[in-house]
Amino acid sequence: MVVSGRIIIETRGNGDTKDITELVQEQLQGSGLSSGVATLCVVGSTAGLTTLEFEPGAVADLQTALERVAPRGAHYKHHFRWGDDNGHSHVRAALLGPSLSVPFVDGKLILGTWQQIILVDFDTRSRRREVVVQIMGE
Amino acid sequence: MVVSGRIIIETRGNGDTKDITELVQEQLQGSGLSSGVATLCVVGSTAGLTTLEFEPGAVADLQTALERVAPRGAHYKHHFRWGDDNGHSHVRAALLGPSLSVPFVDGKLILGTWQQIILVDFDTRSRRREVVVQIMGE
Amino acid sequence: MVVSGRIIIETRGNGDTKDITELVQEQLQGSGLSSGVATLCVVGSTAGLTTLEFEPGAVADLQTALERVAPRGAHYKHHFRWGDDNGHSHVRAALLGPSLSVPFVDGKLILGTWQQIILVDFDTRSRRREVVVQIMGE
Repeated sequence: MVVSGRIIIETRGNGDTKDITELVQEQLQGSGLSSGVATLCVVGSTAGLTTLEFEPGAVADLQTALERVAPRGAHYKHHFRWGDDNGHSHVRAALLGPSLSVPFVDGKLILGTWQQIILVDFDTRSRRREVVVQIMGE
Repeated sequence: MVVSGRIIIETRGNGDTKDITELVQEQLQGSGLSSGVATLCVVGSTAGLTTLEFEPGAVADLQTALERVAPRGAHYKHHFRWGDDNGHSHVRAALLGPSLSVPFVDGKLILGTWQQIILVDFDTRSRRREVVVQIMGE
Repeated sequence: MVVSGRIIIETRGNGDTKDITELVQEQLQGSGLSSGVATLCVVGSTAGLTTLEFEPGAVADLQTALERVAPRGAHYKHHFRWGDDNGHSHVRAALLGPSLSVPFVDGKLILGTWQQIILVDFDTRSRRREVVVQIMGE
């Protein structure tokens, strides 16, 4: 069985990081499924999904590391195409990846106590983000 | 239901980046399935999958960032094993990851307008790549 | 159909990298399923999953690259929260990602000959790790 849902969430961009664990768990409860996989995918190419201990320190540390990999002030060829200023956003999102697959058993997402599902919005402005939640199982 | 397919694609290696979105969508249409998840996995340890706005600027910017993380000219212990020259290829592929899960609804992959599924071939030579496309749903 | 399994594995932490390919393949054989997707997810926020040619050189090279992105000796705000010393572990795990989806056909995981499924434990101490293996298909 497949149950499709969507999570809509407002972000401030610029690395704004949202804990969406509870929202996914709610979708799972609504599906009535017991065992399977919740596949999440964020729509758009300047945001990503992963898991993290959701506390302000670790959230900031992740941004610092991504600043090393794709510094905001570096030269990006993407900027020449559209006059955009979000070349670093595209690179960071591609590296983090848009999709995440979280197993569930007995109707509960299998995650650690200190492990939350996070959406990181790398764009340079506020965005209204959509995460597709595809719940498959029995 | 499960429908298995494969995408075969020739690359030039060295970061050659292919937009495979249409090829995945074609596999999806052939499957006859309406709602579910397309799971993609590239065979081999020197290529990866993610999503990106597929335009030359962003493609080049992603390579520049990966050059910071795993420079081509750095010292790689992998080279001592086989006399290979593709240590950076292995590292970049492992970081980007080999698999991607894309939900579909009403027979269409759920992606943003400027969000394409890309295969990045990090190997140091031309390769014939195989991406397994496992379409599950109903 | 969904068959749920778990892999328990002891690690030394500090980047300890385990090839779990055979353990996943065993779970797959036990499931009796022929075609589908094995979704893996590691419980906890200081370990990650990907694929790599599992040989000591490539394993060391991956650690070297992650040391560039999130150096062990850097300043981490996470340390101020709990007095922890594993800020770099959290960042590295979030970047590598906790989940991996591997298709299987005819009862076999579809991977390259030199492509193994690896668990990388970034924590700063020995851990007993749990990887959830959700096998879905027919």
